Amino acid sequence: MSGTASSGTAPEPRRRGRPRRSPGDAGPGARERILQSARDEFSERGYDKTSMRGIAKAAGVDAALVHHYFGTKDDVFAAAIEMSFEPALVIPAVLGQGGTDGIGERLARYFIGVWENPATRAPLLAVVRSALTNETAAKVLRTFVLRRLLERVAAELDVPDPTFRAELAASHMVGIAILRYVIKAEPLASADPERIIAMVAPTLQRYLTQE
Amino acid sequence: MSGTASSGTAPEPRRRGRPRRSPGDAGPGARERILQSARDEFSERGYDKTSMRGIAKAAGVDAALVHHYFGTKDDVFAAAIEMSFEPALVIPAVLGQGGTDGIGERLARYFIGVWENPATRAPLLAVVRSALTNETAAKVLRTFVLRRLLERVAAELDVPDPTFRAELAASHMVGIAILRYVIKAEPLASADPERIIAMVAPTLQRYLTQE
Repeated sequence: MSGTASSGTAPEPRRRGRPRRSPGDAGPGARERILQSARDEFSERGYDKTSMRGIAKAAGVDAALVHHYFGTKDDVFAAAIEMSFEPALVIPAVLGQGGTDGIGERLARYFIGVWENPATRAPLLAVVRSALTNETAAKVLRTFVLRRLLERVAAELDVPDPTFRAELAASHMVGIAILRYVIKAEPLASADPERIIAMVAPTLQRYLTQE
Repeated sequence: MSGTASSGTAPEPRRRGRPRRSPGDAGPGARERILQSARDEFSERGYDKTSMRGIAKAAGVDAALVHHYFGTKDDVFAAAIEMSFEPALVIPAVLGQGGTDGIGERLARYFIGVWENPATRAPLLAVVRSALTNETAAKVLRTFVLRRLLERVAAELDVPDPTFRAELAASHMVGIAILRYVIKAEPLASADPERIIAMVAPTLQRYLTQE
């Protein structure tokens, strides 16, 4: 903004923690580094407290580069969410194996597996927490991620209102994740995953395949 | 703290918004007023940003009175949650009507009704948001509220692992609430409540009654 504010003495020293501005200096893999930093920052601080500057600093690049690659904070958040949901992109494969026979169990097993793995659980938790406390984050989740995901699943189904069915199934899995992994309410929190899968599979099977 | 800080002129004016300290001045219904203020404050600000002082101010009493009636911030939060969950206390009645026939539908209808009503939805949202972002709030929810509620429901059931069954049913309803009322993800967000009840009732029925 104030390009003339320098007091005309020596060249203004670069501020600590603020690397050079040119994208050329960011080195290879800068985009991936930014995305990883964004995911970490959103995970640790939540949507509200995460800043473009903080993401840039964690990635060792200038904030301008974050803007250059991703646009706004919402866009970075969306990209970070998409990365977190990458495992979800295999859902159509999960659905596709062997047709709709046993689809409920495969989906339940896949979902519990993603949440049981600490590496995939952390970013999912961050997304859930951000979306529940910040309307912008909620909008990004429902617009960019959930809608696409549900439509992708719905496309594989042969029932009336497939998106509604897919979302009902998703709602159950979201609720289990929240009680088991976030609130840690017993007895669900320490139940054997296989026991949960065995109970939930018929529910998902019914939602996704029965009229 | 600094009772001698007054500069010795006129009697120190009472600070704005800080009523007299004596519990006797709080007037009738002070406890209920504090509880209502606590619920409002937790709803609006979330657990982290709510203070005992803020609750006291909103209720028009001294913070000491809040401590006197409720103890710590956690205790006030627990009491506010219990008040928010009061509608849930009718669950045994919901369960009891006509035995277990149609129990799934009655429970689904009751739950959706509570969330469809803005007056009961707001405090529930506050609880969910607080518990998802603050470990202390989560602990209060699972220890004071969820456990009691699940045990109460479980006592009415005649299946193996009734508490686990009750929690599975609860998880589905929690997930629906989150996708429909918090994330507002379509098509669930604008689906006819009756359509949701019709789909979910058989699931709850199975969890609560079938071995």
